[in-house]
Amino acid sequence: MNGLEYLDRIAVALGKLPGIGRRSAERMAYRLASDTDGVMRELEQALREAQESIRLCSLCGGITTVAEMPCRLCSHSSRDASMVCVVQDPSDIVAIERTGAYKGRYHALMGILSPMHGEGPGDLRLQALLKRVETEGFSEVIMALGTDVESEATGNYIAELLKKYPVRVTRLASGIPVGSGVMYSDSVTLSRAMKGRQTLG
Amino acid sequence: MNGLEYLDRIAVALGKLPGIGRRSAERMAYRLASDTDGVMRELEQALREAQESIRLCSLCGGITTVAEMPCRLCSHSSRDASMVCVVQDPSDIVAIERTGAYKGRYHALMGILSPMHGEGPGDLRLQALLKRVETEGFSEVIMALGTDVESEATGNYIAELLKKYPVRVTRLASGIPVGSGVMYSDSVTLSRAMKGRQTLG
Repeated sequence: MNGLEYLDRIAVALGKLPGIGRRSAERMAYRLASDTDGVMRELEQALREAQESIRLCSLCGGITTVAEMPCRLCSHSSRDASMVCVVQDPSDIVAIERTGAYKGRYHALMGILSPMHGEGPGDLRLQALLKRVETEGFSEVIMALGTDVESEATGNYIAELLKKYPVRVTRLASGIPVGSGVMYSDSVTLSRAMKGRQTLG
Repeated sequence: MNGLEYLDRIAVALGKLPGIGRRSAERMAYRLASDTDGVMRELEQALREAQESIRLCSLCGGITTVAEMPCRLCSHSSRDASMVCVVQDPSDIVAIERTGAYKGRYHALMGILSPMHGEGPGDLRLQALLKRVETEGFSEVIMALGTDVESEATGNYIAELLKKYPVRVTRLASGIPVGSGVMYSDSVTLSRAMKGRQTLG
């Protein structure tokens, strides 16, 4: 291979990451190759160590290490074991943890139902969820999925599956984002916000 | 380290690449960690192999491999050894080669003069350029630098240094980009295009 072919392989891999088009991937690869300050080495080492150490938790599917299995969110006794929050991806767990507004367990589906992209119920961690609901005896299952059509369909599908268990199924509130105004919200969001209106004071 | 700290190290390295902000870097790191299709492994391998094989050419500074030193652009006898094209970065060489409009030698400066960022003449491959002009006997040195203030200042500085050599110093034409129109060009570009007007037919 010549030098450019090596760069091309880096660019192809980078191009598979979210939000990275072909041109950005190429620019990044060139930047890595003119490696005067060692970013290439730094990135390669970070990836190698992450590969050796990072695992997905066998219970919730979140990001953890070989040394912590199941993860600390699943094993910590101070967390509320009566509720489980169902998310699409491991990164959603990080986002929710960052808020500090939730102290229960998690369950990552590793995707959503998407017939268009050939993702059916068998591709998600649904059986694992049902088994956890059965054995861990949650009293509430919170759907923390997106508000696009596919995510809502996924939430409804799971709620249907959960009907045979004595568990309350909820979903995150949807409405006007904090810091935004009524006139900037689309009508679907506004009508959702109207339906979910809350008593003040 | 916990799982998120491993991810953070990947995100920090990715964030040093051009056009990648903190949030995109995080999103990319999470994508790499939920590694169901092996992109993390693919990227790590590509980086490792590139690190082992890619080198910058000792003569022109372009991208080459350990096995081809100096690079094929510097060593190939079919190329015009009477002219050298001075560029900012190795990636510029690739861009110019892609046009097929140039068949001479190259010289990458590895940066431009930028007092604001603490980049002085000593940080560029200027002595190497002067030495090449002396020993390789070029008859023309083409400045293929950008058209921002710093790049133009760099070109002028180099032209000044080259005054003592019997060599013609040129720079790339600047003007209206192909496919664009007069009304979309800013006035600096337009006046540059007017000054550099060419006889038709």
